[in-house]
Amino acid sequence: MGLTIGVDIGGTKIAAGVVDESGKILETHTVPTPPTAEGIVEAISAAVTGAGKGHQIEAVGIGAAGYVDDKRATVLFAPNIHWRHEPLKDKIEQRVGLPVVVENDANAAAWGEYRFGAGQGHEDVICITLGTGLGGGIIIGNKLRRGRFGVAAEFGHIRVVPDGLLCGCGSQGCWEQYASGRALVRYARQRALATPENAEVLLALGDGTAEGIEGKHVSAAAREGDPVAVDSFRELARWAGAGLADLASLFDPSAFIIGGGVSDEGDLVLDPIRKSFRRWLIGAQWRPHAKVVAAQLGGKAGLVGAADLARQG
Amino acid sequence: MGLTIGVDIGGTKIAAGVVDESGKILETHTVPTPPTAEGIVEAISAAVTGAGKGHQIEAVGIGAAGYVDDKRATVLFAPNIHWRHEPLKDKIEQRVGLPVVVENDANAAAWGEYRFGAGQGHEDVICITLGTGLGGGIIIGNKLRRGRFGVAAEFGHIRVVPDGLLCGCGSQGCWEQYASGRALVRYARQRALATPENAEVLLALGDGTAEGIEGKHVSAAAREGDPVAVDSFRELARWAGAGLADLASLFDPSAFIIGGGVSDEGDLVLDPIRKSFRRWLIGAQWRPHAKVVAAQLGGKAGLVGAADLARQG
Amino acid sequence: MGLTIGVDIGGTKIAAGVVDESGKILETHTVPTPPTAEGIVEAISAAVTGAGKGHQIEAVGIGAAGYVDDKRATVLFAPNIHWRHEPLKDKIEQRVGLPVVVENDANAAAWGEYRFGAGQGHEDVICITLGTGLGGGIIIGNKLRRGRFGVAAEFGHIRVVPDGLLCGCGSQGCWEQYASGRALVRYARQRALATPENAEVLLALGDGTAEGIEGKHVSAAAREGDPVAVDSFRELARWAGAGLADLASLFDPSAFIIGGGVSDEGDLVLDPIRKSFRRWLIGAQWRPHAKVVAAQLGGKAGLVGAADLARQG
Amino acid sequence: MGLTIGVDIGGTKIAAGVVDESGKILETHTVPTPPTAEGIVEAISAAVTGAGKGHQIEAVGIGAAGYVDDKRATVLFAPNIHWRHEPLKDKIEQRVGLPVVVENDANAAAWGEYRFGAGQGHEDVICITLGTGLGGGIIIGNKLRRGRFGVAAEFGHIRVVPDGLLCGCGSQGCWEQYASGRALVRYARQRALATPENAEVLLALGDGTAEGIEGKHVSAAAREGDPVAVDSFRELARWAGAGLADLASLFDPSAFIIGGGVSDEGDLVLDPIRKSFRRWLIGAQWRPHAKVVAAQLGGKAGLVGAADLARQG
Repeated sequence: MGLTIGVDIGGTKIAAGVVDESGKILETHTVPTPPTAEGIVEAISAAVTGAGKGHQIEAVGIGAAGYVDDKRATVLFAPNIHWRHEPLKDKIEQRVGLPVVVENDANAAAWGEYRFGAGQGHEDVICITLGTGLGGGIIIGNKLRRGRFGVAAEFGHIRVVPDGLLCGCGSQGCWEQYASGRALVRYARQRALATPENAEVLLALGDGTAEGIEGKHVSAAAREGDPVAVDSFRELARWAGAGLADLASLFDPSAFIIGGGVSDEGDLVLDPIRKSFRRWLIGAQWRPHAKVVAAQLGGKAGLVGAADLARQG
Repeated sequence: MGLTIGVDIGGTKIAAGVVDESGKILETHTVPTPPTAEGIVEAISAAVTGAGKGHQIEAVGIGAAGYVDDKRATVLFAPNIHWRHEPLKDKIEQRVGLPVVVENDANAAAWGEYRFGAGQGHEDVICITLGTGLGGGIIIGNKLRRGRFGVAAEFGHIRVVPDGLLCGCGSQGCWEQYASGRALVRYARQRALATPENAEVLLALGDGTAEGIEGKHVSAAAREGDPVAVDSFRELARWAGAGLADLASLFDPSAFIIGGGVSDEGDLVLDPIRKSFRRWLIGAQWRPHAKVVAAQLGGKAGLVGAADLARQG
Repeated sequence: MGLTIGVDIGGTKIAAGVVDESGKILETHTVPTPPTAEGIVEAISAAVTGAGKGHQIEAVGIGAAGYVDDKRATVLFAPNIHWRHEPLKDKIEQRVGLPVVVENDANAAAWGEYRFGAGQGHEDVICITLGTGLGGGIIIGNKLRRGRFGVAAEFGHIRVVPDGLLCGCGSQGCWEQYASGRALVRYARQRALATPENAEVLLALGDGTAEGIEGKHVSAAAREGDPVAVDSFRELARWAGAGLADLASLFDPSAFIIGGGVSDEGDLVLDPIRKSFRRWLIGAQWRPHAKVVAAQLGGKAGLVGAADLARQG
Repeated sequence: MGLTIGVDIGGTKIAAGVVDESGKILETHTVPTPPTAEGIVEAISAAVTGAGKGHQIEAVGIGAAGYVDDKRATVLFAPNIHWRHEPLKDKIEQRVGLPVVVENDANAAAWGEYRFGAGQGHEDVICITLGTGLGGGIIIGNKLRRGRFGVAAEFGHIRVVPDGLLCGCGSQGCWEQYASGRALVRYARQRALATPENAEVLLALGDGTAEGIEGKHVSAAAREGDPVAVDSFRELARWAGAGLADLASLFDPSAFIIGGGVSDEGDLVLDPIRKSFRRWLIGAQWRPHAKVVAAQLGGKAGLVGAADLARQG
């Protein structure tokens, strides 16, 4: 089989990329993300058509945030777009005249890493995306595992603190409230407010107030040894590692692949996560330990993974 | 393929059963459980030999508590027997002259239910054993999933309360400290001590003291409407259901099968667990819900499952 | 000594009342609450002057939300009015020509109940105000205890859940996030969303949606036995009672007086709080138990208490 | 008034000391602690008689672990001695012919520090004893506050983790399970087991195993910079400081005095506690902060305090 197209739906633009069997992106076509749900359907079609021009395309894979049904056809619920039981596969197929597969975007990214990135060579691997929130995907026995109804791998919403922080999902204490880019910023702001004398570098990078601290400031300040920034990463790692230990108890994978914007910091964030994982791993002395490694494809993982899942049919 | 033998290692006796392809136990042979690790090896062999007499046996499956390696040969660690990196497969094969498969006992029970019990017809199912502790097994895509290193499905040791109750595993806040037979008894004792006037039936069943309350008393008293006993089951269900909701976020199975002694109480315990599961399920209105059903094989699930896993090779 | 004036600063109106030595309000004068901090100072003065007309007034007591310093003169911080180190005593004294005492409003209400309400006859009593948030006051040895710096008795902000819900104070897990009118509504909304079939009465009282549920709906529905409403009160009581048990460990008062809007429901809310308090009280069998009683003065407690504190000088 | 005797009841010996009005111990008489409850009564009497020989003694104060009633006469419940509603005052008065006051031992120590140690000059001060467990005493308005029924200031048993660690009191999540000498050792053992490579100094001080680690080893290793030991103190401080912040919200004292064996480490433990306290203090920028200071009387505080309380009558 030859070329397929993968689609990534971002908050500001929609990207469609032509991908070959080796995971290489031959060409990308992007369009702005429209404000309406129906507009996005048209924009996806336009991006696919634009990217595919001049190529022999065999199928299209779309990565979408939210719940996708087990037929990989319908978006049951999307958090940021008003899609409720949206028949996305049918709509796009009618418009572009190609077979379409819809996939949860974090699943698609996990598959991308498994096939062409940090997951190569592993049969059982868990991918965690530490972005604004926390998502991921499950590979067991060399297959993406989507659950019976298509909505597995919602890592961000396991409850790590009973009666804990409110989550956008309506529940409380979800993991992504404690281990994500948003959590990192909250840690930094709380600490900078409590002890500004330990956050001088950090505060100087923003507008001087705790509220003005953003994620990039925390990273930059941590690299300079700012105590509050370093401690904020440590707190993030405490929760991330403890959650990985739970996932090791459940899935026992050979590796955890950590992607998303937070992982761009590399060992600044991965080393404390590894330590925390080790600290909380049950029966650590009696079992082989999963590796905790950085993702390799960056922001391209979802597009490449979606294209490859379309190829697999 | 014809007959295989399954072995169940209990605290007081070791049972070996001859099982046919339909999961029927044709004959069982039991021996007392010896006190030493090496004695247990001999006792398993004796039970297998005794059960197999007069039958054409093709293989033996042994369900053992603890970590079993990915080759299903070595017990890495057992909680109640002093086995540390114990080559159980080799030792038993030498003694009984048959191919042997070693499996975690909760995995074996899960497989038994999947093949011949409540899990029939499901491709993706999670089995939870609520006994003294909490164990279980994972079936995804019609296969038992053991993880890369053989130690997956340690459900009882995911952390549900940070800095929570000490667990026998050395960690804190493990699920089995909140959802298990032992937890049920603790709930009942605490409540009976605090409000004995609400535990009259319950206290009368034991020796009259909170410390004298045992699991069977809680069940019997709950059936009579004893407020403390009913509330203890509700507390157990609160934690069990919340944990199932987490597992639904991760695995999205079509069903949860609840086995173990606690499940013998049927809907007395299952109904509150279902309610609690429903209460905590993330995105409940946008997704199909897994069923929560009672196990069907009772205490035979492990033996039958181990025998069947041996047959599968 | 004769008459004093107490002032209550509400969100919509400011009330000044002339109070005699027996705690009786002889006359009340109210003015609308202006939007600005300085406007409120003028409005307080106007209300005091209006109320005092024709009376021989000896002093004025003002109940203000927030931190009041140990000299009872300066509002260090107010949550809803932009007062930061506001010299309220001086400003009002200049305007009304009478001695002024500034007091935290929950402290004033506690004193009102102690002197003329449910606290009469007790030497050591803790008052808890379950309103939108949770406040209170401490009477030990027949004196209001304000702490060394004036900011004691901030009951609502003790941490009952590590890493718990965000609070308006900037911290997490504060008691008032779990035991207050606002918490009650949150409980009801969460439960109505998860299990609408158990909230039929409750949903019918609002606009039919979970978001439309308000506090008065929960009370009304609970009186009709609506399962979700009843369970929401039980959850509130679980947290309220557990917190009272902590306060009993610390203060060992002879009584807890429960005031605020939530307490208007009387035994509907007090009985479950009593049960929960009893459930969590440490060493319950070895100690006399504090009573948990309803406040008696309703919304007048703060005004009457402030007036009486001014009389005490 | 002249000389009084204070009594300290330890696990191995009972000490009676003659104390003058300045808090100076003129003479001490000790006897071994007998195994039976009645034997301890006799031993106390013997110690008092022995110490008093040749002195003009006016009264005796006894510090006893457990609940003491509001008349300071009866031990309602003692955790380590089988005293249940024990009329200790009467029994000792009959034997020694002097007026006797019974006081909770942590209250007595708090009073000792207030009168002659780190609490001098403060009107409102909270003393915390970080020993094997966690106890303390409350001074408000220059008086020891015992509560209505005599059992106030049970700091160690406020609930800081819902559903947390089991406590000897029968409840769960008590502060002393997280902030005490026993907790410190648990932290060190858990960490040394998980990451022995970070505990080389610590493990070398004991018998080489995690279980062999004792409190003195943690202190010694922390002084040498052993990572696990330092981290264990940090964890202790995290919980101690957060609890102090709660107490500041409630009592708003001018100082916290930290005593008990853990405080012998001085700034090694006090500095992290101060940081943690500052981190968690509500409204920190709008209020004066209580000081966190070390106790000054060491193990003598209880005896001296009991003697002084007897003098006060």
